[in-house]
Amino acid sequence: MGSPTQRTAVTAAACSVLFFIVGILIGKFAGAPEPVPAWFRGMSTDGDSKLTETLMKEIRTDNIQSDLKFFAQKPHIAGSPREEEELVTYVFSEFKKHLDSARIFSYKVLLSYPNATDPNYVAVQLENGTEVEVSAKVEKVLGQDQDDSTVVNPFNAYSRPGIVTGDLVYVNYGTIEDFLYMSRNLSMDLNGTIALARYGKIFRGDKVKHAAQFGCAGVILYSDPADYAVGGHWRVYPDDWWLPGSGVQRGSVLPVDGDPLTPFYPSIDSAYYLDQKEISVLSAIPVTPIGYDDAIRYLRLLAGPDVPSTWRGQLNVTYRHGPGFTAPHDNSKMKLYVQTYSEKRITKNVIGYIRGQYEPDRYVLIGNHRDAWVFGAVDPSSGTSAMMELARAFGKLLKEGWRPRRSIMFCNWGAEEHGLIGSTEWVEELIKTLGNRAVAYLNVDIAVEGNATLIAAATPNLYKLLCESAKKVENPNPEEVARGRKTVFDTWLANSPSHYDPALPQIDSIGSGSDYTAFLQIAGIPCTDIRYTYSQAYKISSYPLYHSAYETFGLVSGLMDKGFKYHQAVARLWGVMAKTLADKVLLDLDCTQYASKLERIVRDIKANYGALLEKNDVTLDGLVKAVDEFKKAAGDLQTMTETVDVTNPLEVRRLNDQLMEVERAFIDPLGIFGRPWYRHTIFAPSQHDAYGSSSFPGLTDALFDIENDKDQVKRWEAVKKEVSVAAFTIHSAAGVMKDVNDIGGLNTN
Amino acid sequence: MGSPTQRTAVTAAACSVLFFIVGILIGKFAGAPEPVPAWFRGMSTDGDSKLTETLMKEIRTDNIQSDLKFFAQKPHIAGSPREEEELVTYVFSEFKKHLDSARIFSYKVLLSYPNATDPNYVAVQLENGTEVEVSAKVEKVLGQDQDDSTVVNPFNAYSRPGIVTGDLVYVNYGTIEDFLYMSRNLSMDLNGTIALARYGKIFRGDKVKHAAQFGCAGVILYSDPADYAVGGHWRVYPDDWWLPGSGVQRGSVLPVDGDPLTPFYPSIDSAYYLDQKEISVLSAIPVTPIGYDDAIRYLRLLAGPDVPSTWRGQLNVTYRHGPGFTAPHDNSKMKLYVQTYSEKRITKNVIGYIRGQYEPDRYVLIGNHRDAWVFGAVDPSSGTSAMMELARAFGKLLKEGWRPRRSIMFCNWGAEEHGLIGSTEWVEELIKTLGNRAVAYLNVDIAVEGNATLIAAATPNLYKLLCESAKKVENPNPEEVARGRKTVFDTWLANSPSHYDPALPQIDSIGSGSDYTAFLQIAGIPCTDIRYTYSQAYKISSYPLYHSAYETFGLVSGLMDKGFKYHQAVARLWGVMAKTLADKVLLDLDCTQYASKLERIVRDIKANYGALLEKNDVTLDGLVKAVDEFKKAAGDLQTMTETVDVTNPLEVRRLNDQLMEVERAFIDPLGIFGRPWYRHTIFAPSQHDAYGSSSFPGLTDALFDIENDKDQVKRWEAVKKEVSVAAFTIHSAAGVMKDVNDIGGLNTN
Repeated sequence: MGSPTQRTAVTAAACSVLFFIVGILIGKFAGAPEPVPAWFRGMSTDGDSKLTETLMKEIRTDNIQSDLKFFAQKPHIAGSPREEEELVTYVFSEFKKHLDSARIFSYKVLLSYPNATDPNYVAVQLENGTEVEVSAKVEKVLGQDQDDSTVVNPFNAYSRPGIVTGDLVYVNYGTIEDFLYMSRNLSMDLNGTIALARYGKIFRGDKVKHAAQFGCAGVILYSDPADYAVGGHWRVYPDDWWLPGSGVQRGSVLPVDGDPLTPFYPSIDSAYYLDQKEISVLSAIPVTPIGYDDAIRYLRLLAGPDVPSTWRGQLNVTYRHGPGFTAPHDNSKMKLYVQTYSEKRITKNVIGYIRGQYEPDRYVLIGNHRDAWVFGAVDPSSGTSAMMELARAFGKLLKEGWRPRRSIMFCNWGAEEHGLIGSTEWVEELIKTLGNRAVAYLNVDIAVEGNATLIAAATPNLYKLLCESAKKVENPNPEEVARGRKTVFDTWLANSPSHYDPALPQIDSIGSGSDYTAFLQIAGIPCTDIRYTYSQAYKISSYPLYHSAYETFGLVSGLMDKGFKYHQAVARLWGVMAKTLADKVLLDLDCTQYASKLERIVRDIKANYGALLEKNDVTLDGLVKAVDEFKKAAGDLQTMTETVDVTNPLEVRRLNDQLMEVERAFIDPLGIFGRPWYRHTIFAPSQHDAYGSSSFPGLTDALFDIENDKDQVKRWEAVKKEVSVAAFTIHSAAGVMKDVNDIGGLNTN
Repeated sequence: MGSPTQRTAVTAAACSVLFFIVGILIGKFAGAPEPVPAWFRGMSTDGDSKLTETLMKEIRTDNIQSDLKFFAQKPHIAGSPREEEELVTYVFSEFKKHLDSARIFSYKVLLSYPNATDPNYVAVQLENGTEVEVSAKVEKVLGQDQDDSTVVNPFNAYSRPGIVTGDLVYVNYGTIEDFLYMSRNLSMDLNGTIALARYGKIFRGDKVKHAAQFGCAGVILYSDPADYAVGGHWRVYPDDWWLPGSGVQRGSVLPVDGDPLTPFYPSIDSAYYLDQKEISVLSAIPVTPIGYDDAIRYLRLLAGPDVPSTWRGQLNVTYRHGPGFTAPHDNSKMKLYVQTYSEKRITKNVIGYIRGQYEPDRYVLIGNHRDAWVFGAVDPSSGTSAMMELARAFGKLLKEGWRPRRSIMFCNWGAEEHGLIGSTEWVEELIKTLGNRAVAYLNVDIAVEGNATLIAAATPNLYKLLCESAKKVENPNPEEVARGRKTVFDTWLANSPSHYDPALPQIDSIGSGSDYTAFLQIAGIPCTDIRYTYSQAYKISSYPLYHSAYETFGLVSGLMDKGFKYHQAVARLWGVMAKTLADKVLLDLDCTQYASKLERIVRDIKANYGALLEKNDVTLDGLVKAVDEFKKAAGDLQTMTETVDVTNPLEVRRLNDQLMEVERAFIDPLGIFGRPWYRHTIFAPSQHDAYGSSSFPGLTDALFDIENDKDQVKRWEAVKKEVSVAAFTIHSAAGVMKDVNDIGGLNTN
């Protein structure tokens, strides 16, 4: 034995060790909670915000440039071997390489093409039948990179084929107002005429629809320099981005979205296909487009009164209404020769997946189409290249250990140009899955069509995310940065402040015209659509070379975005939005902005129609009450999200589900009156312009031109019905935002 | 200082204490996980199963009896003061007392009544206009408890008012086959005739619809002893439960569900109401019901050939077809005098809530209607009394500290008898909330209409829950217990084993006829409907006194369920199902049973129509493939639920959401072809009998009587379309069951 001191020390040490161990065990188990399971770690955090910076840095201009060069080096129209084989294979292999997985969805759908060996044309037909002033059948080759045997000749997809002759009339943009002016103000009988309409302002399919309504036998579409080569048009492609006289805009005139042979259902193997001969969606009359070098030849010959100043284009000719030609051609007719045909072909969507860590059953979707009318360097390959780079950049983050809370899906669509066919068939097929699970669909069609400013359309619940994300993206324009506008947001706000809040840029209501349509109109999924655009000062409806054979890689890399900085900025903004929606514990869906928007819409309706409604005994009280209810519920839900215990996954999920349900609540399964393929009660394409957006479309349609309707009683009943549908829908949307056990409505006590 | 030993002890003790504390602290925090939050406790357990026993014990016969006595003591037709004020107030206050909260939902809807001062009748009209053999305008008072001034005279709700005369014809049950037999086999022209149809087999509204289709001018409905007083009918009410000759069955003939003035939308304050004069849902021809004491007077006079044996009832008369009467009445006509009218009145639903602890946004709904044609002691107050007792019993559990994982809602409907109006308006109003959140709707209309066996209809995903729950409920019949059948399940199985599995009782497909309809057909919510019924050996379509003034408390307490044990058994089964769905971590929705059911349906279609389909070049390959896909996905999802980490709330929620989505996936927003108010592609009411259920109703409708259609091409195209819709819907439902990142469909690679 040692000394007492040693003994003391040994005993003390032994006791200490013993009690230490006992202490640890007691500390660990006595009264301690169950161990926290592994799944709980990180579930209540928003993810590393530094990674957003990393993501943006990963998005590189050189990658986008090389992808664009690849996509745009050859034409890639929907249904062609290059589009459905070469490009699909490339996108699929890239997605597989960078993301968790990828899939291809194939649909056999009705597509439309010009006859390669028997091209469309228009001409003046003399009394003896001879054709003179025959229009060009192809666009001139003006640059090396557009000389390709697979360029399809100018045509309008889904035109009915036909050979028609008639007196030519000039119908300006072919809007409903233009036709009403000719028929009412000029008392002109348009039956049997050939309408020459300039492109611009509204969807081309609606020009044809209007012409058919007013009895025309055919339509010729052309691009006027006033809209496509403004300011004198002496510098055109290949020297500048303006449209040359031989350039022709292609485009679909299909009035519905998706495969017209399988309305409402997907074109899958078991699909029931309508007989092509029986469908009424092909244009009622033949239509084909020409360039302004040809158009001026027919405009010069036109007889009839001079047009009003707003109808004049910028060709060096006196614009007249017609009908028919002046002497010596007064017995000649306009001839339209259209051999456009439609046939079933396969189109494919490529979908890439990143699996979410905690909520794999919540999908953030980003999408862009792949098919182009010709080379498509702007539309859509600028967007496709941006998406490919985004997939690469997200893939890099994945390799570095990041995984989003929710799943992200990269959607590469086929056959958009023909009528949003790839995306529509996909949404139709997967509606039951997407309907419950999709958080938002973020669309980019064209990424860059100019370098003036960002432009955006969105459902109001995404306004805030759009703005906050744009504030994070550095300004691609050094001149703007020099003016103190450091971010994409700054230039955007400076260019187009909103009418109702000077701190917010104008964000357009979302109508139709790109692949978000099915997501919004069939599934009620919040949507955005963004692009970099040209100066609004030009007052043009699209960039000049839109859908022509001159939309080449050289155009983009040489004239539109030399350093690909604008492409990079759009890809970054897109990525930041997607990452934020995928990573944040609470969804960035802002229902209070929706409430404000609804208030503005009702205010506008009162301003525009208030007196008329009152005179006809239509009250908006129910609608106003519903908007008030919505506003209160949105505020309450907002408060709940601010005070929720973010460590409680089921409480978080409940509130997020409610935020998602708001947009769904605006879907009326019966569809909008007379247009059942659109189901969103608040926003839908305008009835008379599928590119435009109409608020309360059912009501707006019912009120359109109501004073001239012969059956006033019936029309006003329709207005009352539409007011009630709008009020109910908003009441219904308010309901999903209320506390989940407080689901009583207007009639409770 | 003390001795070394003392010092040793003190030092050792001091060190021990110090290290003990340090040890505890290390044990508690070093390397330990974050503390488990409070919300986590109990989240991964199924709740205390002993409480199911407690719940069942709490359900008492005396409470049910006293509630039934209260409900049935006076008539309570929808829209009457007793129904909408006294009873609503009672149910509301009971719900408030026992549950967390309650609400009343009021809807102004079109209801229908007989004219109290100008009753309906039928009579023989002599050539000189004199009326003889006038039918009774009221039911005889046969017992004290049915002598009440608020009894409404016999009528059929939503009959068109009118006074018509014509030759009488006897049309058996008025099925489509009966009318086809008269028109095809007998070549009888029914135009302008008055059809005398016996109640039974099919929904009375369809009898009227068929009569109108075949040109009849009016319909008289009566109850034949063959169906309502079988076996000689010498013992009838008040001595037995069989219908006496003065008893008349009331009932609605409305062919649609919900307020006919606001189709598809709820009758809330902002609703748009159709003009009553413009709606086409009132019966096309007048109709009113009579008793068999009156019917025999007209049958005796009937001319024409004898009917086939299957058409004969059990009245002491030779049943003939007509048309018209024998001498001396051969110039007399049948007269129908109907003053039934419809007007807008308020009806109310009372909803009671129990808030779920972890998933308050998931609703288990139980429902029953409150309104009755007269005293309603069987229909529906037997069910209402059971539900009141269930609310009390659940309230007791709440007071003892229990709270379910999910919310439970108690739904007490108004105006069911008129056409499922209360429940339909409510689902129409709350569709966006219920569509995402409702787990299941468990209906009881009549709780007890006999004491032979349980009978049930359900969506296949609830078969298992129904059976397992019925095994937990003790058999109310001592004779059955003596036979070794200890539970409700045992007697059920012994009475009606299913055709495909002898270990399972027959469970009917769920059609229409009670308040589950809107839940199933509008929202795609899994549904059950249960009751205790009479012996199937009677071969009757309903209990004899159904919808007559003799459905009194005395009938139930004296003849049908003396000790209220059968009421108790139904309430218990109802409660066990609700508690199980509300408490279990993983939802008891069994998609593999759905797969088996789909396989059986396809097998039946092949058996019934296979040769015909083949002959007409219709392939079922796509449908078979879709069912295979569904079966595989259901099996995979089942495996996932068996292996999921139940402590992970988001993984559990994901699988539960998928289980809920399956039923929703069967909803086609376009509705069933020709009947857009029904949207469930797999189960819907039969086209020719709204009480019956049809599998693949679109396809069945398209195939019905197809050989006799003049336009064979069009009809077979319709068949092909319906096959494709069924295949797509099943494919779509398979999609929601797959792994959430594996949402590719048939066309992926």
